[in-house]
Amino acid sequence: MCRVVRAIDWDSGAVVIIDQTLLPGRFSTVRLETVDELIGAIRRLAVRGAPALGAAGALGVALAAGRHGTETPEALATVRAEAGRLARARPTAVNLRHGVERALAVLEHGPEAVLADALAMLDTDERINRAASRHAADLLLRLCPGRRLRVLTHCNTGRLATVAWGTALGAIRHLHAEGRLEVVLADETRPLLQGSRLTAWELADEGIPYRVLPDSAAASAMARGMVDCVVVGADRIAANGDTANKIGTYGLAVVAARHDLPFVVVATESTVDRSVPDGAGIVVEERAPEEITHFAGTRVAPEGTAVFNPAFDVTPVALVTAVVTENGVLAEGRGQTP
Amino acid sequence: MCRVVRAIDWDSGAVVIIDQTLLPGRFSTVRLETVDELIGAIRRLAVRGAPALGAAGALGVALAAGRHGTETPEALATVRAEAGRLARARPTAVNLRHGVERALAVLEHGPEAVLADALAMLDTDERINRAASRHAADLLLRLCPGRRLRVLTHCNTGRLATVAWGTALGAIRHLHAEGRLEVVLADETRPLLQGSRLTAWELADEGIPYRVLPDSAAASAMARGMVDCVVVGADRIAANGDTANKIGTYGLAVVAARHDLPFVVVATESTVDRSVPDGAGIVVEERAPEEITHFAGTRVAPEGTAVFNPAFDVTPVALVTAVVTENGVLAEGRGQTP
Repeated sequence: MCRVVRAIDWDSGAVVIIDQTLLPGRFSTVRLETVDELIGAIRRLAVRGAPALGAAGALGVALAAGRHGTETPEALATVRAEAGRLARARPTAVNLRHGVERALAVLEHGPEAVLADALAMLDTDERINRAASRHAADLLLRLCPGRRLRVLTHCNTGRLATVAWGTALGAIRHLHAEGRLEVVLADETRPLLQGSRLTAWELADEGIPYRVLPDSAAASAMARGMVDCVVVGADRIAANGDTANKIGTYGLAVVAARHDLPFVVVATESTVDRSVPDGAGIVVEERAPEEITHFAGTRVAPEGTAVFNPAFDVTPVALVTAVVTENGVLAEGRGQTP
Repeated sequence: MCRVVRAIDWDSGAVVIIDQTLLPGRFSTVRLETVDELIGAIRRLAVRGAPALGAAGALGVALAAGRHGTETPEALATVRAEAGRLARARPTAVNLRHGVERALAVLEHGPEAVLADALAMLDTDERINRAASRHAADLLLRLCPGRRLRVLTHCNTGRLATVAWGTALGAIRHLHAEGRLEVVLADETRPLLQGSRLTAWELADEGIPYRVLPDSAAASAMARGMVDCVVVGADRIAANGDTANKIGTYGLAVVAARHDLPFVVVATESTVDRSVPDGAGIVVEERAPEEITHFAGTRVAPEGTAVFNPAFDVTPVALVTAVVTENGVLAEGRGQTP
């Protein structure tokens, strides 16, 4: 049942998503019938992950076009205004903006054309995810020959993040399918626990062995020799390979470099923003203080507590073994790629 | 009211503690009338922190001696058996064992002598904490001259951890009292959130400016130039200065070294275990999986999820600017001490 539902899809006039905020406790889908509902779902991370957000951008424009039509200048202006708000729902997520722009490019062909193009984008997603993660798995096997791998990952980069297959978690799937995976160490990924809630759910669902650990224990796991390599996704990649990804990625990369462990970023080309030369140009959004001061409705910090809650950090390419996309190696940092 | 209550104290035949598991939501004290109740409180971290655990060890023996007497060999054997169980309640906490041993050394002088010695130990705690944290504050001021400091810390090392004053947080108190502190960045400190619950509560209680951040955001804060120095406590220090402290400390030290930021460990001499030559000899306890798989009674990871949940990690002295105690600098690692 849940095995065959895409993380985001289209069903008779609405965008349908798996509500990821309810996992792992409850599997539930939500119908989103307006762009505002979709924006709300994106903001509360009910739908998340760079590729899934690309699909959300395109499907959102299809939703607006179907609702308002595209036959008058006024209708087109309305659709474009909604598309603009959608594109800005999460500033760091370049895929969301790309998805919107791709859909807008066919807007004048009418609502059916926009929808057909968005659905084609969904179908493409699995193919390019499989290709990018295939390259990453092959690279990891070359970097860590002769044993079943103990792979550390951060956040969720699986089918919940990508419509259907996964980037970093897709590489883990390839390794598991080939009998080359020993165990996944999945960072719980504060503050929203995408690791313990979503990655663990996907791994358990497929029978892949895993352990969840606090983000702060990853360095200790590396120091103890429990990790062969680190593989992560990306939310946005600059032209030089500097990578914005879930907060905590940068620290992992620093510690992995100290322990000479391969650190591989897996993403689709749509995540690469060639208009930004390097990481200094990536704007990092700050998220709501309540993600830190509260948990499941319980206050965990005193009233009036100020927080520092960046959604992402930026890992310089110099700390990364390789950034891999569906086209192969995009950038190499530490010069370890064989 | 809560300003004058010690984190652990003695009141007419019972050990009285502030129940730290209820903070910051509720301030409540608990009377512990048996060694088993005290062991339970230690295990669930209602009382915690290396110096407070030293006091708990001594007071626990006073509790047993008062209850069973010390006049017959059988009574002495009973007290010693309870003391042994108490000493093993948290294997990594050398202070707990030291507190027990100190009390056992005067056991044959009778219950009153044991209690008097334990109470003297409490009185000593504030004095040596002030001295150790004074050395640390002076060192930080020499290392970071000319500005009010932005200090990152991890876990709770304040009066809740130390009976009355604090080690790393004591150094922060000295800096604040002298107008040399700009802000404290307090890691939330997963899994039990001692940073957001306890450190933030102490800082708010005294009007010291602070922000709470996810542990995984500390590296990003350092990379962005938001941090002048890092100061942490210790749960156990080997003879060479290698330091066991709350999980996450090692990763902070690696990143601080990369950014050339002073990293100072503050502890009392009672935390130093000279029988252990270096960090390789420190046994790290693993804590319960439910700390990771559940939050406030809510399951956050799938059924059957395995975890990696070490209480501590070990930071090699080579990554530390200095380890400071009440006697001054115990060990220097990075050779930056002026």
